[in-house]
Amino acid sequence: MAALITLLTDFGDRDVYVGVMKGVIAQICPGAPTIDLTHAIPPQAVTAARFNLATAYPYFPDGTVHLMVVDPGVGTQRRAIAIQTPRGFLVGPDNGGFSGVLQQEDAMALKGRSSHSGAASPTTIAAVELSNRDYWRSLNPSTTFHGRDIFAPAAAHLANGVPLDYLGRPIDPQTLISLEPPPLAPINGGLQGTIQYIDHFGNLITTIPAAAVAQKPWQVQFNQATLPQTQTYGEVPPGEPAAFIGSHGWLEIAVNGSSAWERFRVRLGDPVQVIWQMP
Amino acid sequence: MAALITLLTDFGDRDVYVGVMKGVIAQICPGAPTIDLTHAIPPQAVTAARFNLATAYPYFPDGTVHLMVVDPGVGTQRRAIAIQTPRGFLVGPDNGGFSGVLQQEDAMALKGRSSHSGAASPTTIAAVELSNRDYWRSLNPSTTFHGRDIFAPAAAHLANGVPLDYLGRPIDPQTLISLEPPPLAPINGGLQGTIQYIDHFGNLITTIPAAAVAQKPWQVQFNQATLPQTQTYGEVPPGEPAAFIGSHGWLEIAVNGSSAWERFRVRLGDPVQVIWQMP
Amino acid sequence: MAALITLLTDFGDRDVYVGVMKGVIAQICPGAPTIDLTHAIPPQAVTAARFNLATAYPYFPDGTVHLMVVDPGVGTQRRAIAIQTPRGFLVGPDNGGFSGVLQQEDAMALKGRSSHSGAASPTTIAAVELSNRDYWRSLNPSTTFHGRDIFAPAAAHLANGVPLDYLGRPIDPQTLISLEPPPLAPINGGLQGTIQYIDHFGNLITTIPAAAVAQKPWQVQFNQATLPQTQTYGEVPPGEPAAFIGSHGWLEIAVNGSSAWERFRVRLGDPVQVIWQMP
Repeated sequence: MAALITLLTDFGDRDVYVGVMKGVIAQICPGAPTIDLTHAIPPQAVTAARFNLATAYPYFPDGTVHLMVVDPGVGTQRRAIAIQTPRGFLVGPDNGGFSGVLQQEDAMALKGRSSHSGAASPTTIAAVELSNRDYWRSLNPSTTFHGRDIFAPAAAHLANGVPLDYLGRPIDPQTLISLEPPPLAPINGGLQGTIQYIDHFGNLITTIPAAAVAQKPWQVQFNQATLPQTQTYGEVPPGEPAAFIGSHGWLEIAVNGSSAWERFRVRLGDPVQVIWQMP
Repeated sequence: MAALITLLTDFGDRDVYVGVMKGVIAQICPGAPTIDLTHAIPPQAVTAARFNLATAYPYFPDGTVHLMVVDPGVGTQRRAIAIQTPRGFLVGPDNGGFSGVLQQEDAMALKGRSSHSGAASPTTIAAVELSNRDYWRSLNPSTTFHGRDIFAPAAAHLANGVPLDYLGRPIDPQTLISLEPPPLAPINGGLQGTIQYIDHFGNLITTIPAAAVAQKPWQVQFNQATLPQTQTYGEVPPGEPAAFIGSHGWLEIAVNGSSAWERFRVRLGDPVQVIWQMP
Repeated sequence: MAALITLLTDFGDRDVYVGVMKGVIAQICPGAPTIDLTHAIPPQAVTAARFNLATAYPYFPDGTVHLMVVDPGVGTQRRAIAIQTPRGFLVGPDNGGFSGVLQQEDAMALKGRSSHSGAASPTTIAAVELSNRDYWRSLNPSTTFHGRDIFAPAAAHLANGVPLDYLGRPIDPQTLISLEPPPLAPINGGLQGTIQYIDHFGNLITTIPAAAVAQKPWQVQFNQATLPQTQTYGEVPPGEPAAFIGSHGWLEIAVNGSSAWERFRVRLGDPVQVIWQMP
């Protein structure tokens, strides 16, 4: 059976661009099942693509091919790439959109290493530039729609079982563009992260992972408000804000029955402070 | 072949929450076909979920699993449930979102009973609480995303053929939360219902079923206007309103070539009166 | 294996109308893969449907069934049709929505003819009116949702391999409604076309095909601006407009990193002039 292919783009839902990529996939790999992650990434917003792909990645079967086309650099010198990870494949432009997934894989490799008595594990990431025109849709791809002409064909060939290294020349994974949010900063009596994503419900997702706040009780200082630590937004009265570890594994700010974004009108990158409490 | 799974949520299209549920389904039941009903239910609007699911339900093959995640009570004491009906399965929170479907099944059971000489038919609905953690995605589900951790896995196991009663302890279907619009009210020379749904085209769908107005000619009194009974909106001039039995089987108000919602600016629950005419 | 079915409608994403059509398809042709082209055609905008379907059509496998339901005339005397082309099938109302695809097929037939020494090729288009009620979902279809009751069933039967002429009485393809944009007009030192589509990114797609401007260098006069000919929008500085042959094969106007529609606020049908340059 053909591998599963997921699609994540900034193409929106008004045009047929996504459908066209699926048509190209069906021509190369008939019967390949496809799953839409989202096509509502704001135009050319690679950071939102990075967050969403990293969020979805752990929930897919081994061997899944993730096709990401948020591509402000199409037609310029940016590289078209495919990456093989221990769990599957990533296909798209080299612009940092995959760096959240790769950071997860790095963390898992590190964890694997430490649990195996410190023995160095081999790096399990391989990458190629999609330079082999035999696997493009045509020898003369358009300058503006590599999703159709280069990326979707590459994803379909991988779903068919074509080995990664057939698709082009190998590249050093260390040279892939990285796009990480700023690291957590220590502050007096706590630590500071930032808002990295705002979802459809208006929930504010920070850069603070569960592990960073697992040891002791805390409160959140945010936008001149103090928010209690809860297990879920349902623990505070309707209309009240709360902070908890969300389903993505990040500290998250929500308003029960409403939108934290409408309440606070913050922006991506705004600071969020965790203050340790007496136990 | 795995059973078909439909998905209906209020997750919107900006995030990867729906894609994540499909990834979880693909892990448990590879190859299960999925169909999106809609993910644009207004946040936490269980009544809209109820209407849309009931509208779609009769058009799917026997054995289809309908996964509904509009879940304002996630993380609180509301029950997570699965229901088996004569036509398939329903999976989601117990908040009334399934009551439109169950009402249909009640009506059909009643009809079946009367057409079989009054012999009592057994109730054909079974329900369980999703209490068996062996069929959850993890022993420690998130408090905010049961769609991913409890409901999608349950749907995938049902699509795989796992019997309903494996998923948890049986519950009495009579205890399921019901969420029915107010009943029709008799008025002088007619009857009164309400607006129960406004669709993408701005058509106003009432709570008045075809059967209630099948016996004699009628007009509609609505928002200080009198609307003629037609077969379709194409029978009145462009820009003019009409009332007819819509494709859902409910009396519906539309404006030819335009939006009745923009014309009348009504709200869900607003009254609509049918006045009998001389034949 | 069942043929692929694509869907293109103006149903939006709020309601379950699209899901219902897929349910009906699954009842008739279990396992038929479906691909959404778009459901965000503005209500009843047949010209946008025509453009989008013609854009997607060349990228699908042979035998694909394209189901188009943008149907302002539903319930009136407009014909319900199915068309067989050399590449697949078209199903929907006879309102011009298919004329972009048919124009492509005409152009290819002409090209085939000229490359075969001028020998007349047979017309390869066949069409029927969907008059055979055996292939409808019910003998009494709704007056407002032929997508569910007539078109989706016809598409599913074609995907099952039912021959076109089983579905109803043949009609002369010459009688199909055509909906073509105005032809290019010669002007002093160049030619004039119009804006035929504005996409999600705000790119302005004209009626001027690549072939019409392939012979010599040119500039574009548009909305009191002069735009340089480029290969892609990345060749001009951010925020600057450019004109190039887009991925659809039409001359297109875009702004690097932004929206040409927001910049120029033009309308469908507005003129665009190509002025030849000295080589």
